[in-house]
Amino acid sequence: MERILTTELAAHVGEDVLLRGWLHRQRRLSRVSFLILRDRAGLAQIVIDRPVDVAAEAVLEVRGRVVVNEQATSGVEVHGAELTVIVAPAEAPPIELHRPELKESLPVRLDHAAAALRHPVVRERFRIAAKAVAAFRATLGELGFTEIQTPKIVATATEGGANVFALDYFGRDAYLAQSPQFYKQTMVGVFERVFETGPVFRAEPHDTGRHLAEYVSLDAELGFIADHRDVMAVVEQCVFAMLASVGVEAPESIPIVHFADVRSGEELDLAPEDERRICEEHGELVFVEGFPTAKRPFYTHPGPDPAWSNSFDLIYRGLEIVTGGQRLHRYRDYLAALAGRGIDPTPFSGYLDAFRWGMPPHGGFALGLERFTAQVTGAGNVRETTLFPRDRTRLSP
Amino acid sequence: MERILTTELAAHVGEDVLLRGWLHRQRRLSRVSFLILRDRAGLAQIVIDRPVDVAAEAVLEVRGRVVVNEQATSGVEVHGAELTVIVAPAEAPPIELHRPELKESLPVRLDHAAAALRHPVVRERFRIAAKAVAAFRATLGELGFTEIQTPKIVATATEGGANVFALDYFGRDAYLAQSPQFYKQTMVGVFERVFETGPVFRAEPHDTGRHLAEYVSLDAELGFIADHRDVMAVVEQCVFAMLASVGVEAPESIPIVHFADVRSGEELDLAPEDERRICEEHGELVFVEGFPTAKRPFYTHPGPDPAWSNSFDLIYRGLEIVTGGQRLHRYRDYLAALAGRGIDPTPFSGYLDAFRWGMPPHGGFALGLERFTAQVTGAGNVRETTLFPRDRTRLSP
Repeated sequence: MERILTTELAAHVGEDVLLRGWLHRQRRLSRVSFLILRDRAGLAQIVIDRPVDVAAEAVLEVRGRVVVNEQATSGVEVHGAELTVIVAPAEAPPIELHRPELKESLPVRLDHAAAALRHPVVRERFRIAAKAVAAFRATLGELGFTEIQTPKIVATATEGGANVFALDYFGRDAYLAQSPQFYKQTMVGVFERVFETGPVFRAEPHDTGRHLAEYVSLDAELGFIADHRDVMAVVEQCVFAMLASVGVEAPESIPIVHFADVRSGEELDLAPEDERRICEEHGELVFVEGFPTAKRPFYTHPGPDPAWSNSFDLIYRGLEIVTGGQRLHRYRDYLAALAGRGIDPTPFSGYLDAFRWGMPPHGGFALGLERFTAQVTGAGNVRETTLFPRDRTRLSP
Repeated sequence: MERILTTELAAHVGEDVLLRGWLHRQRRLSRVSFLILRDRAGLAQIVIDRPVDVAAEAVLEVRGRVVVNEQATSGVEVHGAELTVIVAPAEAPPIELHRPELKESLPVRLDHAAAALRHPVVRERFRIAAKAVAAFRATLGELGFTEIQTPKIVATATEGGANVFALDYFGRDAYLAQSPQFYKQTMVGVFERVFETGPVFRAEPHDTGRHLAEYVSLDAELGFIADHRDVMAVVEQCVFAMLASVGVEAPESIPIVHFADVRSGEELDLAPEDERRICEEHGELVFVEGFPTAKRPFYTHPGPDPAWSNSFDLIYRGLEIVTGGQRLHRYRDYLAALAGRGIDPTPFSGYLDAFRWGMPPHGGFALGLERFTAQVTGAGNVRETTLFPRDRTRLSP
């Protein structure tokens, strides 16, 4: 007999079936046992006509007949079941997986991730993430983008600042890439339109619910644009497809506000409370454009008034999930931008080559996957939407 | 007028069109100029009724009429063209991109990757890689696998050995993951069937055409298997789909030979010359199973005769591109395997938790993307199929 999944039971009423999975919960009466079996698809109630005692998280094989029971959550259950324990666990997990919602604190759940991630509500977040990534790739594939794979061990810090991890590379100094920025721009010269989904690394000293030392960045870059608005149109398509893939309704279009109109006083950046306020005032999804050129990375293209850049953030439910913009594309503009910030261009020569040899006007963006998933699910902390998060204090599991 | 791609010209014969791209090659006569324009899709010949001199790799906009010319490579060309230089390059690239095949040595091409990757023959390899990755994901998605994203900064060396990169993690020792092995196994307890496509890191001291310090690993892991043959069936489906996606014919099935029958003498592993010989004798794609248990990682499941493991390699055109097998799944078997090799289990506790709390029989595999692409394209060196390779001596661009 071929194994079926718990979600397929309703299509087999009256038939004998074979299920496999984990013992999620059990209730034992004097003459009958009710087991909840969990498999990758869902949960199913199994009725056994004798008292049995199975360890939590035992790996089971169940044979029985599917019957309708309107009291069961899924409307069907398995009766007259025979049970085989495929693997008995060595111990019960320190997480009460049978509860509808886990009661353990976040640190306890993260310490025991191998158990906590098995909970249906918890694991569903990562299915949402997987669907969103697939929608991102599919959308860009349709638009003629080519997927690239760029190195994570690099010779130069990409985004500047102190938050870069250093490593010993065969006796030389190397760093973990803070973003694929330099490489995706270089690849615009090859494929015009590229994307990458992969890890980025920030030696992030802040202990907040929105920062991690390692996260998944969904990156795209495209050439032959007029300005950053062409990039924003691609962001909108991607985010709408990602939301649709997880069943969340998107607005018809995303409003665009200018940084100068939404900042607090004369501040040069947005604080978390500004991001929340902007969404309260303008909607769940809001583009903010025109961030001060001096506060964005050196490769940022200035706008018509050079004090304000052709850059943008996308804020979703009060949190920045995308940052992007038009980039400089002329070699001499790069040399001037680096000189203006007092940065030695020498370590950037492999990157600057791409502009030396002819590069069209281009721009791109990066979307933080864990932030997106946290906002979609209302998780409230990116540690809830990262399988095995890394922060200042957490390096395992 | 909307821009079209060079490959779309044939559908617009007799029409005025707008193209954008790079100056790939030019030939100038006294009264007429022939330019080859390169865009992301291909090349097109542009005829201009006056002598012009455009710099190599200039970014151009071309307006003209599409006419049939059977002498032109694509059967059509653009006549009466008007040319606009969108961006003039600062310098000519040090790579002769106009040649049908690049003449420069591998080190020169790698040093000037921002130019060399623009060559149509070179960039095609990376389109092949992108298609293969998409086929890998699509195949596993159809089979009920969930995509996961696991950390690359880890507390413990996964695969053992000395080839691990160390880094300073907020003052603590950490390492770059040699594989997602521990995490994908843990996730079998959550989703039963998982895959990941991402970078892995090996401080590889060998200077060969098949090793890199960083490469892209296509990983999968699945639960509720009988043995490694169930994993090999999934490998076969993935590899066949990857080959089909790039137009390469696959055999009807992949022959399986036992390690003991194909090794040289009493050797405990296969040497590169063994891999070449095995393909000469058995076919382009050959599974070798039953590697000595003692030579495989501690998590490897032994076979019916415990000296030979339930593990396998897939050899393609004389090079191992996949390694995989059944894993141990009982907690006590892990403790015994670690003890048998004299390895302290303490650093592995987060990993061992997954088995402590009930894990089904499972197995998986890893496919090296750059090796696959090298073998498909006949490139002969994984540095030819890596955008920006990392090896003992190369850290940039």
